[in-house]
Amino acid sequence: MGVEIERKFLVQNNAWRPQTTHSQPMAQGYVSSSPQHTVRVRVAGEQAYLTLKGPVYGVSRAEFEYEVPVAEARQMLGLFCQGRRLEKVRHRVVVGRHTWEIDEFSGENQGLIVAEIELSAPDEDFERPEWLGEEVSGQARYYNSQLVAHPYSGWSEGEASGEGA
Amino acid sequence: MGVEIERKFLVQNNAWRPQTTHSQPMAQGYVSSSPQHTVRVRVAGEQAYLTLKGPVYGVSRAEFEYEVPVAEARQMLGLFCQGRRLEKVRHRVVVGRHTWEIDEFSGENQGLIVAEIELSAPDEDFERPEWLGEEVSGQARYYNSQLVAHPYSGWSEGEASGEGA
Repeated sequence: MGVEIERKFLVQNNAWRPQTTHSQPMAQGYVSSSPQHTVRVRVAGEQAYLTLKGPVYGVSRAEFEYEVPVAEARQMLGLFCQGRRLEKVRHRVVVGRHTWEIDEFSGENQGLIVAEIELSAPDEDFERPEWLGEEVSGQARYYNSQLVAHPYSGWSEGEASGEGA
Repeated sequence: MGVEIERKFLVQNNAWRPQTTHSQPMAQGYVSSSPQHTVRVRVAGEQAYLTLKGPVYGVSRAEFEYEVPVAEARQMLGLFCQGRRLEKVRHRVVVGRHTWEIDEFSGENQGLIVAEIELSAPDEDFERPEWLGEEVSGQARYYNSQLVAHPYSGWSEGEASGEGA
């Protein structure tokens, strides 16, 4: 088991774009999700993963991830994840000692861009780049597993506090 | 993806026991289950598996199975499968060209013994040994994923038609 310690932010401008070192389209879906767990299938280019995550405690979360054949992942997305899929492009931006993962959603979540940083301890320090917006760690509506059911395009104006870029 | 074609029967006496070639204790639990899917974690001796199964069509069912480290499977059983676990011993008995898997449940399902045969086609012929009882293929209450929620010990007398051995 790994433990994922992650903080999540909105982005407030496009200044990150020229710093991108890698961009990867991803398709993912949820076989099941509850406050206690999620079972996720993800295809990222030539690789695919089946991932189980436990409940969120602050910014930490137990995670079990297994690589699976891409063809089987696509079958699982079709068989098990109807109506619970999303697509995004994950960009990588290095800032200081850390690599930010900036997820730019498409489809019903078009317009939403969030930046995540993985830390080795919840209180680990990190550099805050100028494009970094409001922190949304722990806000359930920004969980990918929630975005499939309540996509960004359906949020009311009051909710969509971070139009990001 | 594999497709599992399986028929399931009760057993009507103990004549299979001396023919057992292999017996394996198993602990398994369900991360989630619905009529459309199950996500199962199983520890069988020195091996462990994460298995996704699709809906049952007659005696067929899509199946995706991945071997995982035993230690991680035990963590997943503890984290994700509280109240949805069962234990059994799986015995193997060879009859003609086929190998029967005879599951002898313990705990709250003590007393239940079912025999399963995997076929390569739904109408494939097979030898019926003298110990074979009533067929229960497709009866949802005999699904392992149902036995965790509604164990055999709680079935009323009318329901428990096959006390097996």
